[in-house]
Amino acid sequence: MDFKMDWQRQDRIGLPEAIHAQSKSPEQIAAVLSEARALGVAVLVTRLDPEKHRALGPECVDTLDYDPLSRTAILAGSGAPQALDLDVAIVTGGLADMPTAREAARTLAFSGVTVTEYPDIGVAGLWRLMERIEDIRSHDVVIAVAGMEGAIFSVLGGLIAAPLIAVPAPVGDGVAEGGHAALTSALASCASGILSVNIGNGFGAAHAAMRMARLKRPAGCDRYLNRDSYCLRG
Amino acid sequence: MDFKMDWQRQDRIGLPEAIHAQSKSPEQIAAVLSEARALGVAVLVTRLDPEKHRALGPECVDTLDYDPLSRTAILAGSGAPQALDLDVAIVTGGLADMPTAREAARTLAFSGVTVTEYPDIGVAGLWRLMERIEDIRSHDVVIAVAGMEGAIFSVLGGLIAAPLIAVPAPVGDGVAEGGHAALTSALASCASGILSVNIGNGFGAAHAAMRMARLKRPAGCDRYLNRDSYCLRG
Amino acid sequence: MDFKMDWQRQDRIGLPEAIHAQSKSPEQIAAVLSEARALGVAVLVTRLDPEKHRALGPECVDTLDYDPLSRTAILAGSGAPQALDLDVAIVTGGLADMPTAREAARTLAFSGVTVTEYPDIGVAGLWRLMERIEDIRSHDVVIAVAGMEGAIFSVLGGLIAAPLIAVPAPVGDGVAEGGHAALTSALASCASGILSVNIGNGFGAAHAAMRMARLKRPAGCDRYLNRDSYCLRG
Amino acid sequence: MDFKMDWQRQDRIGLPEAIHAQSKSPEQIAAVLSEARALGVAVLVTRLDPEKHRALGPECVDTLDYDPLSRTAILAGSGAPQALDLDVAIVTGGLADMPTAREAARTLAFSGVTVTEYPDIGVAGLWRLMERIEDIRSHDVVIAVAGMEGAIFSVLGGLIAAPLIAVPAPVGDGVAEGGHAALTSALASCASGILSVNIGNGFGAAHAAMRMARLKRPAGCDRYLNRDSYCLRG
Amino acid sequence: MDFKMDWQRQDRIGLPEAIHAQSKSPEQIAAVLSEARALGVAVLVTRLDPEKHRALGPECVDTLDYDPLSRTAILAGSGAPQALDLDVAIVTGGLADMPTAREAARTLAFSGVTVTEYPDIGVAGLWRLMERIEDIRSHDVVIAVAGMEGAIFSVLGGLIAAPLIAVPAPVGDGVAEGGHAALTSALASCASGILSVNIGNGFGAAHAAMRMARLKRPAGCDRYLNRDSYCLRG
Amino acid sequence: MDFKMDWQRQDRIGLPEAIHAQSKSPEQIAAVLSEARALGVAVLVTRLDPEKHRALGPECVDTLDYDPLSRTAILAGSGAPQALDLDVAIVTGGLADMPTAREAARTLAFSGVTVTEYPDIGVAGLWRLMERIEDIRSHDVVIAVAGMEGAIFSVLGGLIAAPLIAVPAPVGDGVAEGGHAALTSALASCASGILSVNIGNGFGAAHAAMRMARLKRPAGCDRYLNRDSYCLRG
Amino acid sequence: MDFKMDWQRQDRIGLPEAIHAQSKSPEQIAAVLSEARALGVAVLVTRLDPEKHRALGPECVDTLDYDPLSRTAILAGSGAPQALDLDVAIVTGGLADMPTAREAARTLAFSGVTVTEYPDIGVAGLWRLMERIEDIRSHDVVIAVAGMEGAIFSVLGGLIAAPLIAVPAPVGDGVAEGGHAALTSALASCASGILSVNIGNGFGAAHAAMRMARLKRPAGCDRYLNRDSYCLRG
Amino acid sequence: MDFKMDWQRQDRIGLPEAIHAQSKSPEQIAAVLSEARALGVAVLVTRLDPEKHRALGPECVDTLDYDPLSRTAILAGSGAPQALDLDVAIVTGGLADMPTAREAARTLAFSGVTVTEYPDIGVAGLWRLMERIEDIRSHDVVIAVAGMEGAIFSVLGGLIAAPLIAVPAPVGDGVAEGGHAALTSALASCASGILSVNIGNGFGAAHAAMRMARLKRPAGCDRYLNRDSYCLRG
Repeated sequence: MDFKMDWQRQDRIGLPEAIHAQSKSPEQIAAVLSEARALGVAVLVTRLDPEKHRALGPECVDTLDYDPLSRTAILAGSGAPQALDLDVAIVTGGLADMPTAREAARTLAFSGVTVTEYPDIGVAGLWRLMERIEDIRSHDVVIAVAGMEGAIFSVLGGLIAAPLIAVPAPVGDGVAEGGHAALTSALASCASGILSVNIGNGFGAAHAAMRMARLKRPAGCDRYLNRDSYCLRG
Repeated sequence: MDFKMDWQRQDRIGLPEAIHAQSKSPEQIAAVLSEARALGVAVLVTRLDPEKHRALGPECVDTLDYDPLSRTAILAGSGAPQALDLDVAIVTGGLADMPTAREAARTLAFSGVTVTEYPDIGVAGLWRLMERIEDIRSHDVVIAVAGMEGAIFSVLGGLIAAPLIAVPAPVGDGVAEGGHAALTSALASCASGILSVNIGNGFGAAHAAMRMARLKRPAGCDRYLNRDSYCLRG
Repeated sequence: MDFKMDWQRQDRIGLPEAIHAQSKSPEQIAAVLSEARALGVAVLVTRLDPEKHRALGPECVDTLDYDPLSRTAILAGSGAPQALDLDVAIVTGGLADMPTAREAARTLAFSGVTVTEYPDIGVAGLWRLMERIEDIRSHDVVIAVAGMEGAIFSVLGGLIAAPLIAVPAPVGDGVAEGGHAALTSALASCASGILSVNIGNGFGAAHAAMRMARLKRPAGCDRYLNRDSYCLRG
Repeated sequence: MDFKMDWQRQDRIGLPEAIHAQSKSPEQIAAVLSEARALGVAVLVTRLDPEKHRALGPECVDTLDYDPLSRTAILAGSGAPQALDLDVAIVTGGLADMPTAREAARTLAFSGVTVTEYPDIGVAGLWRLMERIEDIRSHDVVIAVAGMEGAIFSVLGGLIAAPLIAVPAPVGDGVAEGGHAALTSALASCASGILSVNIGNGFGAAHAAMRMARLKRPAGCDRYLNRDSYCLRG
Repeated sequence: MDFKMDWQRQDRIGLPEAIHAQSKSPEQIAAVLSEARALGVAVLVTRLDPEKHRALGPECVDTLDYDPLSRTAILAGSGAPQALDLDVAIVTGGLADMPTAREAARTLAFSGVTVTEYPDIGVAGLWRLMERIEDIRSHDVVIAVAGMEGAIFSVLGGLIAAPLIAVPAPVGDGVAEGGHAALTSALASCASGILSVNIGNGFGAAHAAMRMARLKRPAGCDRYLNRDSYCLRG
Repeated sequence: MDFKMDWQRQDRIGLPEAIHAQSKSPEQIAAVLSEARALGVAVLVTRLDPEKHRALGPECVDTLDYDPLSRTAILAGSGAPQALDLDVAIVTGGLADMPTAREAARTLAFSGVTVTEYPDIGVAGLWRLMERIEDIRSHDVVIAVAGMEGAIFSVLGGLIAAPLIAVPAPVGDGVAEGGHAALTSALASCASGILSVNIGNGFGAAHAAMRMARLKRPAGCDRYLNRDSYCLRG
Repeated sequence: MDFKMDWQRQDRIGLPEAIHAQSKSPEQIAAVLSEARALGVAVLVTRLDPEKHRALGPECVDTLDYDPLSRTAILAGSGAPQALDLDVAIVTGGLADMPTAREAARTLAFSGVTVTEYPDIGVAGLWRLMERIEDIRSHDVVIAVAGMEGAIFSVLGGLIAAPLIAVPAPVGDGVAEGGHAALTSALASCASGILSVNIGNGFGAAHAAMRMARLKRPAGCDRYLNRDSYCLRG
Repeated sequence: MDFKMDWQRQDRIGLPEAIHAQSKSPEQIAAVLSEARALGVAVLVTRLDPEKHRALGPECVDTLDYDPLSRTAILAGSGAPQALDLDVAIVTGGLADMPTAREAARTLAFSGVTVTEYPDIGVAGLWRLMERIEDIRSHDVVIAVAGMEGAIFSVLGGLIAAPLIAVPAPVGDGVAEGGHAALTSALASCASGILSVNIGNGFGAAHAAMRMARLKRPAGCDRYLNRDSYCLRG
């Protein structure tokens, strides 16, 4: 094959390798999944369109937990699932942000992170946010997903103390087409200490949150020599 | 001279002609002001830098009410000043937005509009806005001036019923340089019915508000045949 | 469901909540409409493509007044329809601007605003505008919709005294692709006091006009405590 | 020297070579002018800032007809001046467009073209244009110079039959900064058959007009074999 | 109907009205054509895709001269065809530029202009241009159509004396996508006096050339009072 | 004054308020500092140019710890300094990135965070990074500052497990002018879980890191009721 | 036909003419191939989509060596194939870069260049590059193909001495859409002496490498008078 | 010091380390030069403005060969100068391109490469190029420097067989400001096998050419183990 999975990434930097399905053929994806099944390794597949999912063949499809909204599939591993000690809130501005938010949620859940979703909290109806702000504040990390003008990033940034990861969603017309307006708002926010990932990159936001889980680990655990030592509970 | 003042604009569309100083020499500006003094016409000068103001010569300078922050100068007319029946709130996100906000305020005041300023109400400290929101709601029209990510436009848009004019301020670093991020946020807002003018255009926002004053006039007054008929008081 | 209608918006800021169909599935839209029918609430649906309209199912479709040009559907409420005291002119530059203009017209009509359309008045044939300018001047508010270079915004701005809302239409080739040239012309106009909304945002222009209706209300009516108090007639 | 004047251009394509001063040192410019004086060739210098003009030295300066507004200098030749059979109107939107317009006017005058200027005819006051439109129509070619949103290009394009060359001026704030909005309007105009040159390129517009003079020449004169044959009068 | 043909444009500015089919339905186009047939007026239709052409119905299709490459259709008028005294060369850089070039050619031919095409003369093989340069020089006006980097505009501009209209073609990958690179090259050319129209605007280039035909008319013919007086031969 | 310090921010979200000097006059800055001195509050001033620093007056200057490279000034408070339990590495690609990096370092040090700088580790000489990678890995959080193409973000992202905050520096010529290329590289990185702030925003990166310190606090400490409760040591 | 093959290019500059299929119809392509077969000339076809390949007709298809990944087809010539003395490495960042890389590889192989592919060497897993770097160093020229942020260009540039041609691949989401981020990284690299071609231009990169083969030729061979003299081995 | 010279780069990849003066203080530059003098190493300094050059102090200045046009300084080493076996032509479009071209020339000369300059060969006067083309063809590598529309890159690319490195110069007004138009033309050229570096990057173009010198070395010399082995002559 013309590519190699980086199965060592989990051990090297604590983030499991995943399959980005967009540029791969059904045959290539099925082959990697088959290899993973043989190894007993759990695998996350992202950007897997429904048609490509179907094209993997019934045998392969049967082994996958597929979610069409986020276009993610999960192959369970043979061992006990991972359970990273982290509690993440995912706040979305509107319904159109759900595919991106769900990609983040599924990526986190794949690694055993606790996820709570706070959907449809746009600032145009500020009361929606205010009703939930105390709950949102109680999590370790907050991921906010919004398209259009992304004003929620700044409002949240001024109200919570936790790390805040802004994920611009590819949602908007005219000047906001493609999510660029939301990205700009995340980067230029008047609220300080907001972090951003690329437009639509729920997967990246999840991995960024997972990097922060290291800060909660017991002091003696400071290298990723092998998978077992990675602060797993479970 | 290579240009002519449109002294008829007041009668034609209810908006007084003004002098945009940026592209005019001190000699040209002084000549127009001299002509206006002779006619007894009140004149507003915008984008008048302090150096250019000084270069108008002491005689001319003495007749002007000059404000360096907004770079505006006002020449009083010989008759009673105009007093347009309109009550406008001007909300600013931060100190850097003041030059733009003050240009709007001075333009409105020049035509006798009642103006109340609500400075430094950025959404990063939402309590600042919440403390004043009832007061802001009480005005006929709200002009909001903000640079950086301009999140305040959306928050305000969801809280007030009045016409809301967003003025992006040329304030911001990196991706927000020049005020483009704030402009995009104004246009792409998830709160509906927000209107926008060009970056830094406090003058234009003021004139847009003044157009709305027509809606408050008694029913019989529907054309601008001459200046006196323009719903003036005082 | 992952989203909640902001049924209180009408009471809070005088603008009825609407359903932006683009990011919602037929099932989600049908569910909200069913809820609205049960409540007897009138609802406007925007950006509803013909296919999605059909996919709502015959039962739902029968209750809707659907217009494919503007991609809007209206569900009538159980009470007397709203009748906001406002008289709006909608001027369009060319035939390609009609979908955007009609979205504005239908949004206004939904709230009982009087609307007059002035179609196909491009400045390339200035006589078309000049023939109608007296009529256009007679309205409370003027909404102008134009794509390509949007020159009509400036020409109108110099001829009328009413509030002028420019709606750039997503019409144009090459450098004007997507309506960005028309937007820029609206914002950079040499005629002062022109206001702009996002490209193609007829709905937003209508809501902006409706905010101005407040200026015509009797003096004692200054808050939106409940729906009945909202300056309704009829 | 590291560059060579293309003295043959006049003979080859009918357009006299000129000195673009921006990227040349005073010493280099003075040397070319000295060479031209020796040859008795008339020369036009463009983009010559006042400081650079002064730096040419008194001897050189004395031989030049310098205009600081357009930043052009003209060295007269030893023979009879050229007199191209062409009658051009130059229309400007506002005072800030004058440097660009004057560069075009001086370039045309240098080759003996008849030029009439129509200054300060912005569409925000349409009556200014309407008062002069019959006069403007009477010329062979019309050059229109405008910054900001450049709406005048479309209005003129619909009113005149002559070739219309739009010159976007580097005038405007915010979204119109640098003249890009005016350029876009020229290219995307709804009036057909409008031609454009680069922002601020008055020199190029003049040369484009001069190319059209060929169409007026007697039929037998169809090549530029040498300077004398170039349809000169005088 | 929501639009009106500007049948007076021919008389007003010498350019016949045309139907831009892109934003019109087959029904609307067929109706205008039917009206034109009744009046005996010749009509040019542009941007008419093959499917839309077919959708006009067999009766309408039979009356049209349709060219799928340029997506233009011509309805002959009842009188003698127009024959404008103008001789135009159309030079193209490559095969992909043909649709744009042919739109210009058909627009010119519709008004009786003499057109000669010089296809596939890209500068990467300079000999192709050099073989034809003498022929190209012999025309009244040269229209050059090129995508990608548009280098041919500058090369031609330095070799010919005639008016040169650059038409950027929407051809190119990566940084040249959509024809923007070619447009920029046309505007920024180091050869002076080159004129440009919008990307892909063969129709506009043709009309611009037709405006120049006025310069060739006998001196007494200086207004477009009616169609017959428009310098027609034939 | 037209602005109010948000002295409650520390208690609300754990991030001390700071003075962004860019849009404030020396008089305004001196007044706030005077107020802070009276309250005994420590204050960080950012974007304070040397000239503006001098203009604060000798009395004010004497109380400040000023660093011209980062353009930051620190006013010590009356109580014991804060000492947040966090250990941050700051990696820079080259010397030009130092102003941005030092702003981050001084912002962190102001709140008692332990900071280690790893200067001049560009990927063009990969050995520089490889020599230090083990040390870099040992920190809680890594802030990487780079201009030009920002390749170091991706290389670091694949080598370390800690949270990685990319700060694009406003460094680069041509296509990389202003730091936009580095920003794009941070957002589009093929290494997953990288977070970004705006160009040149060392202050924001520091605050983002400080938000992560919450993850290291003892479990019972979950709200910022007052300053003392904020997980301080020392 | 409206275009002519530049069969002389091989002799003029050593690069064989090729057919860029994108803007040509199947009929046009088949005609050129038929002409080439008659002449016994080998031809490379690029950007030939599978559908267009099929549309060439079975007779033509049978004579072609077609590769759908790179969308290239090769028609063998009648003589001995060319064998240019050059040894090129092609490094790719990920699987999505393969179509571009393979276009380069096939273009090189068509001229007899020795090609070695190093697939899937992204810098997120630096060990993949480090394992192969000694091999990569051994080639005459290195072509690197990468999308997204293109960090591999800089890393490679600091590790190898050979000419390095960066080919940005049209791969990436959000801010990296279309390959522009990778292009910018190639141009702005902190590693010196890196060269770039347009996004996705594997063909151009191959031809650029082939130009370098001239440097390896024996000293006496310095012009391309005819094909045989072109340093062929065979 | 906060940075370290990469003195090993010469041995590692054959390109000598240089000092990019832009982001360094005079003190830092003087210190590195002092270190280099002590080691007897020759050093090239780029982007050294005349003021910064003077600020190095008389002692340092006396040891440097400084050229203000290219803003480069050269410190001679103690050994015999390098003499790389390579013969490069540098072609420039106009006088404004000289600073960039000279930076390339001085960088090449520093490493002993033979350089021939062909100044002021713009395509607007094609004869200038045609007069020199045979000479230009005789060099190993051609570097072309051009601003504005950069048409010369394509013309040259079709005429020469040697490797062609396009260097866009930061020269141009309006749409060509900053050199972006020339860059786009280089990348999008219809002539195949053209390579590009960043705008104004004469240094990078020179290093790219120097990488090609490796192709001329005797076969046995394939690694840069130490400086002596680097194919030096003299």
